[in-house]
Amino acid sequence: MYSTVMSTSERLIEATRELLWERGYVGTSPKAIQQQAGAGQGSMYHHFAGKPDLALAAIRRTTEEMRAAAEATFADGRTAHERISAYLLRERDVLRGCPVGRLTMDPEIIASAELRAPVDETLDWLRHRLAGIVQEGLDQGEFAPSVVPDEIAAAVVATVQGGYVLARASGSPDAFDAGVRGLLSLLAPPPNSH
Amino acid sequence: MYSTVMSTSERLIEATRELLWERGYVGTSPKAIQQQAGAGQGSMYHHFAGKPDLALAAIRRTTEEMRAAAEATFADGRTAHERISAYLLRERDVLRGCPVGRLTMDPEIIASAELRAPVDETLDWLRHRLAGIVQEGLDQGEFAPSVVPDEIAAAVVATVQGGYVLARASGSPDAFDAGVRGLLSLLAPPPNSH
Repeated sequence: MYSTVMSTSERLIEATRELLWERGYVGTSPKAIQQQAGAGQGSMYHHFAGKPDLALAAIRRTTEEMRAAAEATFADGRTAHERISAYLLRERDVLRGCPVGRLTMDPEIIASAELRAPVDETLDWLRHRLAGIVQEGLDQGEFAPSVVPDEIAAAVVATVQGGYVLARASGSPDAFDAGVRGLLSLLAPPPNSH
Repeated sequence: MYSTVMSTSERLIEATRELLWERGYVGTSPKAIQQQAGAGQGSMYHHFAGKPDLALAAIRRTTEEMRAAAEATFADGRTAHERISAYLLRERDVLRGCPVGRLTMDPEIIASAELRAPVDETLDWLRHRLAGIVQEGLDQGEFAPSVVPDEIAAAVVATVQGGYVLARASGSPDAFDAGVRGLLSLLAPPPNSH
């Protein structure tokens, strides 16, 4: 599956990331990880204490990538609405779902403070980052004064996460796109503000 | 686990519903269903052809309940905004997640046209029902004329589904509530419309 240039521990982490995204933590066996990584059982336990340890390394890398991808979109645009639009409209593999958000449906991730922590921290970081942008937009008169930044930020992240649910249920990204457009239309500055 | 008054097939369906909600399809073994239902293997295969057949019965019952619960909230309120508020604010076991939406993260549900159908049909029904309510609100001048009913409906359902993700990540229903309040504040009729 992976380049022979990659070290065994790298291949194990990448295989775990793929399997967590596709099948979740409960649905991912150490055996499946070893097969996908082309690594033996001894090799896996040489590099990692076990499935939770390996999953933690995989989740950390996935959350770092998600932060970087989100941060990149926040640079696209001058106004708060443009930056939130860039975040909402960035290209996504919608039918695969969110590799971070899907972990919240995994009972063993949620039951483990250690495995849940990077998921929680990342979604929390995203909400705070978005709330800061909404606050800037409020300060510039872009939004109605009744808008509460933390609440709008939560609605933005929820629309993306729930958009994946709608898309996967229907087998089409259209429902994701519709939800995003709906939220953006509500966030649009009122016509009389210009 | 269940009342002895319930028939074996009823106990099997209820056990499957609980396990699908808690652990998902991939994480639910026939053995676990039998244990939770207090039924033997022979009994399970007497009543159902196998795990997919039993899961389909369980999913159908769960989606019927979800429709009835949503329909009940649509009767609460006179204006479109009040009815959408009632839907968004209805009491939910937020930290357990949505028993229907969580199925979309299950690769074996998504890969099966038969198991995905009731999930897709239910979320689709919900979106159409909400879009009709938004259209009524538009007709009554409740919303800005730029509002597109299908898009707002998708945003409403996505906010709920994504709200579960945020709540489960943080271990608190606060993030769900914040997202819902954010969306409702954006949907609120403009102050000059009265």
